[in-house]
Amino acid sequence: MNNHLILLGHGSGGRLSHQLLDELIIPALSCVGPADQNDAAVLDSPSGRLAFTTDSYVVDPVFFPGGNIGDLAVNGTINDLAMMGAKPLWMSVGLILEEGFSKKELAEILASMKRAADIAGVRIVTGDTKVVPRGKADRIFINTAGIGILEHDLEINGARALPGDSIIVSGTIGDHGVAVIASRAGLELGTTIESDSAALNSLVSDLVSELGGALHVLRDPTRGGVATALKEIALQSGADLLLKEDSLPVKTAVRGVCSIIGLDPLYVANEGKMLIFVSPESAARAIRILQRNPLGIDAAVIGEVTGKGTGRILLETSIGVVKIVEMLSGEQLPRIC
Amino acid sequence: MNNHLILLGHGSGGRLSHQLLDELIIPALSCVGPADQNDAAVLDSPSGRLAFTTDSYVVDPVFFPGGNIGDLAVNGTINDLAMMGAKPLWMSVGLILEEGFSKKELAEILASMKRAADIAGVRIVTGDTKVVPRGKADRIFINTAGIGILEHDLEINGARALPGDSIIVSGTIGDHGVAVIASRAGLELGTTIESDSAALNSLVSDLVSELGGALHVLRDPTRGGVATALKEIALQSGADLLLKEDSLPVKTAVRGVCSIIGLDPLYVANEGKMLIFVSPESAARAIRILQRNPLGIDAAVIGEVTGKGTGRILLETSIGVVKIVEMLSGEQLPRIC
Repeated sequence: MNNHLILLGHGSGGRLSHQLLDELIIPALSCVGPADQNDAAVLDSPSGRLAFTTDSYVVDPVFFPGGNIGDLAVNGTINDLAMMGAKPLWMSVGLILEEGFSKKELAEILASMKRAADIAGVRIVTGDTKVVPRGKADRIFINTAGIGILEHDLEINGARALPGDSIIVSGTIGDHGVAVIASRAGLELGTTIESDSAALNSLVSDLVSELGGALHVLRDPTRGGVATALKEIALQSGADLLLKEDSLPVKTAVRGVCSIIGLDPLYVANEGKMLIFVSPESAARAIRILQRNPLGIDAAVIGEVTGKGTGRILLETSIGVVKIVEMLSGEQLPRIC
Repeated sequence: MNNHLILLGHGSGGRLSHQLLDELIIPALSCVGPADQNDAAVLDSPSGRLAFTTDSYVVDPVFFPGGNIGDLAVNGTINDLAMMGAKPLWMSVGLILEEGFSKKELAEILASMKRAADIAGVRIVTGDTKVVPRGKADRIFINTAGIGILEHDLEINGARALPGDSIIVSGTIGDHGVAVIASRAGLELGTTIESDSAALNSLVSDLVSELGGALHVLRDPTRGGVATALKEIALQSGADLLLKEDSLPVKTAVRGVCSIIGLDPLYVANEGKMLIFVSPESAARAIRILQRNPLGIDAAVIGEVTGKGTGRILLETSIGVVKIVEMLSGEQLPRIC
C-alpha cells in the first residue's frame, strides 16, 4: 500500500479519513483544532444582508500556468460574492478525490487555497472530503461555497444595467481560458500565458465605497467569457448594448493563440476580471480607481448601454462592421474551471 | 444528438448551460426567475450566530430504497446544521454531471431535493452546474452547503460530553448503509430495507427548546456509523463512554443482512438518526420528546459518559463481555453517501 496516494479508505469517515483530515487537510486550510471539529462551523452573525454562493471546479489540467484548481476555487467563489458588492467572510471546501491521487499534489493544492484565502481575508471554516474509486472521477474536484456580507444598501446585480451606462472591463480578457487550453494541449507557444486567477474583492470594495449608487452591475466573465456574461446582463436588464471591438483589452499572445486554435477572446473564460456597469459620468473615475490596483491596470471602457430593449448586443468591429453578439453555444472549452 | 442526455455543452456556461438551468434545474429547485440569476444569493441577515456547513455526495447507486442522492444531499446538510442546534435556512447546490447522464433521472433527483428542502422549511437559493466528459465522473455528484441560525445561546458541540451524561440514539441504526449496500450488490433479501434519509431539524428544535442547557452534544452518525461518531465525541470531549449492546436499536432485517455480509451495525452509516448527550436527569424527558415524533419513535438510551478520560469507549455485550470500540478503519463501505 503506497502511503503517498489517496486510498478509498480516506473517504470512509473512519480512522483513515481522520488521519487525512488531521495530518493534511485541516493543517493546510484552517486553524481549527481537533476539539473544534463539528458538523458545521458556528459564526458570529454579521449585521447586514448576506450573500451566499457556490461553485464546483473540475478544471483539466489541475495545475496550469498561473494557478491550480485550488486557488481557482477560492478566488472564483470570492469573486461571485464580490460581484454582489459583498465583502467575502467565510468559505466551505468540499473535496472529491479519485483513489490514487497524490497526497503531495493535494497538499500543494490546499496550500494554494489557504494562500488565496489569506490574501483575500477570507476564512475557510468548514469542509468535507469524499474519495471515489479509480476511474470514477478525474483526480480532484473541488466545491467551494462562500458567505459574504453587504455593508451597504446598494442594489448591485445583473438586472440594473441602465440606458447610458458605461461598460468597463477590469483588464485583459481570455487569459485564463487560453492558459488552461494551451496547457492541456501542450501547445509550444514560446511564451507562457498565465491564468489571471485572482480575488477581486479589494477592487470591488474600492468601487463600492467610492462610486456608491453610480455602480449598477458587477459580473465576472468566467465560463462563456465576456460575450456570455454581457448577454446574461442584457437579458436580465432588458437592455441593448453596444461594444467597440477596438477597445477590448487582449494580450498579443492571447490573441495569437486564439487565432491559431480558432477561439474568439470574447467567449474565453476569465478568472480575475470583471465587467462593471456605471453611470456614464462616473466611468472615468471608475477607471482611475481600477488602475491604481495592479489587478485593474488594464481596465478600459468597452461599450455602453444604448437603451431599453430585448437584450441585443452589437459589436462594432475595427473596420466599422456591426455584428450581433450571442451567448456561447455548445462546448467551446469544456472543463475550463 | 440525443436530447434526453446531458451533453458536455451543458457545462459550457453558454447557451446550452442556460437552457439546462432555465428548463430543468431552476424550475425544479427554486423560485428564482431569470432576472434574479446572479453570482450569489442575497439574503436578509438573521440575528444570532450562524452555522455553515458543506457535504459532497457520491453515493453509489444514485437511487436506492428509501431515497436517492438528491434528498440525501439535502437532508445531510440540514442535519449537519441541526447538529449544532441551528435552524437551517438556506442551501446551495453544486452539481457535477457526467456527460450522457439522463435528464429524466436528473429531474427526478432535483424534484426529490426540492421536496426534502420543502419538508424541512429550507430554501435552495444558489447553485452551480458542471459537466465532465464520459468516464471522468460517475453519473452525478452533488455538493450541498447550508446556512442556519442559532436562535439560542446554548453551546451544543462534540466537546461538551460531560461525566454522567446519558447517551441516546434517536432510532434504529444501520438502515441507510445496509439499504445502499444491498441495493448495490443486488441482494435478494425477501424484504426491502429502506434508507432512513430524513431531516432531523424539527426533532432538534423540540429538544433545544424543551431541554435547554441539559442538551450537550448532537451528532448524526453518518459515514463510519455510531461507533465512529461516538469515538469522535469521546476524543473531542476527553471523556470515556460505556455502551450497552442490548440497548442498541437495530431492525431485525438490518441485523440479518449485517451478519450475512459481515458488517457490524455500529459501523454502518445512518442518514436520519442522531446521537444525543444529555444530563442524566433529562434522559427520560428527551426520550419522550423524541418518541412523539415519527422520526424518533425508536429512540433509546444506549450508554453513558463514565467520566473524564482519554476517549475510550467500552461496549458491554449481551453476554456480559466488555469490548473496546474503535473508529472504523479502512473502507468498510465506500460511497455510502
